[in-house]
Amino acid sequence: MLPSEFPVYLASRRAEVDLALDKTIAVTYPEVIYESMRYSLLIGGKRLRPILCLAACELLGGDRTAAMPTACALEMVHTMSLIHDDLPAMDNDDLRRGKPTNHKVYGEAIAILAGDALLSYAFEWVASQTHGVDAAVILQVIQNLGHAFAATGVIGGQVVDLACEGRTDVDLETLHYIHTHKTGALLEACVTCGALLGGGQSSDLAHLATYAQSIGLAFQIVDDILDVTASSEQLGKTPGKDQAAQKVTYPSLWGLEASRQKAQELVAAAKNSLQDYGDAADPLKYLADYIVERDR
Amino acid sequence: MLPSEFPVYLASRRAEVDLALDKTIAVTYPEVIYESMRYSLLIGGKRLRPILCLAACELLGGDRTAAMPTACALEMVHTMSLIHDDLPAMDNDDLRRGKPTNHKVYGEAIAILAGDALLSYAFEWVASQTHGVDAAVILQVIQNLGHAFAATGVIGGQVVDLACEGRTDVDLETLHYIHTHKTGALLEACVTCGALLGGGQSSDLAHLATYAQSIGLAFQIVDDILDVTASSEQLGKTPGKDQAAQKVTYPSLWGLEASRQKAQELVAAAKNSLQDYGDAADPLKYLADYIVERDR
Repeated sequence: MLPSEFPVYLASRRAEVDLALDKTIAVTYPEVIYESMRYSLLIGGKRLRPILCLAACELLGGDRTAAMPTACALEMVHTMSLIHDDLPAMDNDDLRRGKPTNHKVYGEAIAILAGDALLSYAFEWVASQTHGVDAAVILQVIQNLGHAFAATGVIGGQVVDLACEGRTDVDLETLHYIHTHKTGALLEACVTCGALLGGGQSSDLAHLATYAQSIGLAFQIVDDILDVTASSEQLGKTPGKDQAAQKVTYPSLWGLEASRQKAQELVAAAKNSLQDYGDAADPLKYLADYIVERDR
Repeated sequence: MLPSEFPVYLASRRAEVDLALDKTIAVTYPEVIYESMRYSLLIGGKRLRPILCLAACELLGGDRTAAMPTACALEMVHTMSLIHDDLPAMDNDDLRRGKPTNHKVYGEAIAILAGDALLSYAFEWVASQTHGVDAAVILQVIQNLGHAFAATGVIGGQVVDLACEGRTDVDLETLHYIHTHKTGALLEACVTCGALLGGGQSSDLAHLATYAQSIGLAFQIVDDILDVTASSEQLGKTPGKDQAAQKVTYPSLWGLEASRQKAQELVAAAKNSLQDYGDAADPLKYLADYIVERDR
């Protein structure tokens, strides 16, 4: 794939994912819960997680239609974590992707329930909609998805993040724990689930896990950098929140320049982990670049 | 099974379930989330849902160890719905089973996350721990569990329940929707999942669905009756809440005596749906009686 072809690839995959997501949820009685689920799921976003899942499936020669239900489930799970993170009892955010957060539109009770429903539906969707794949492999995907999200993954990261709020003595190990779990675990599940659905063996899963861990950390470092450097318009949320909250971040520990450098090194490591796959790994390599070069 | 043997059966199944539940979650870093999950999961309760699941599996000649992971998952899902229902943004309850509610002990943020983690873990647990059953059947169980809990089930019921709060003009159809979803859907999943794991065919699932729908409604009618007649000590929560909230209930629509009568009719219908199974259905029939005869 030529560098000039990547934006087309990205736009085309994103359109496919948006279309598939739109078909996951129909509005029926009681309408408000389905509308609330659709509101956050279809509000936009880069669809990075589903695209990573599809790309990992195709890297191993799989048909990406087999991975699409899981790709959608990963976006549902990610969306539910954002809805719950934004709640008054958690980060208390009014804006997400430039739009009012779910509880601002539908109220707290519906926002909590919409998150719960998305999480439950994600597993149902994988179990009921994945075709052309061995049932035992689908069970492995479900196990990976659950493990990545539960207290062993995203939620564990969020718990430690909440516990560190207002503390200025957070060390690098704890910061690392937060991000490898809050962000990294689900990104890793995206590529390992995609790889499983593409027929990947355990050596493939190991390469892709290294890739995902590297881009996961790079992703978070860039997030921290953008909080310092980007405008509110770019972010679609309030910048400078970390600093205002005296939150320990990579830039606050390392400085901006060293943080940028570290993100680049991680991207190089991510690409390096895919060297066995030749040109077939181009989309995942460009996706790694895209993650550090994004401006929001 | 003789009537006198049922209490022993019930106590023995409950002890088995309690032991299995205790083994589902180990406390590790970050401890607070695992402690919060264990607090609500292991606080006690009748374990009616897991026992129904095991009984349905055994009714069809299955080995109940094959159904134990699903039985535990059903209790996790049920527990998570109680944790979230008790939140200030929902029913705002301080007591559950005579103990402080999860958010009263751990705070709102951890209570929300503990619920999320239990839900996600439930699916992971079924996918990873069910042995000796065809993978395609396990996928059907996961699909059933997701469908019973998501907006199509428990959550849909909770949404309509919240929408009816403070309204005195709720009709029987709406009340029926609330209970067939908020309580009935998961009870139905208990027996259908158990039946699937026991090797049940679609005709078995149909019989057991009728059984579950009948006992689900009977269960709710008895709940409403107990809210009027039971003491706080019996219930482990504040009685008379429905009346104080001017909530429409079966006793408020039909009166106490007609409600008791209706519950008995439903139990008879539940037992009748199992007539093809002879003595093997005794545990499920006694469980139906137990549901209307309980005093909390």
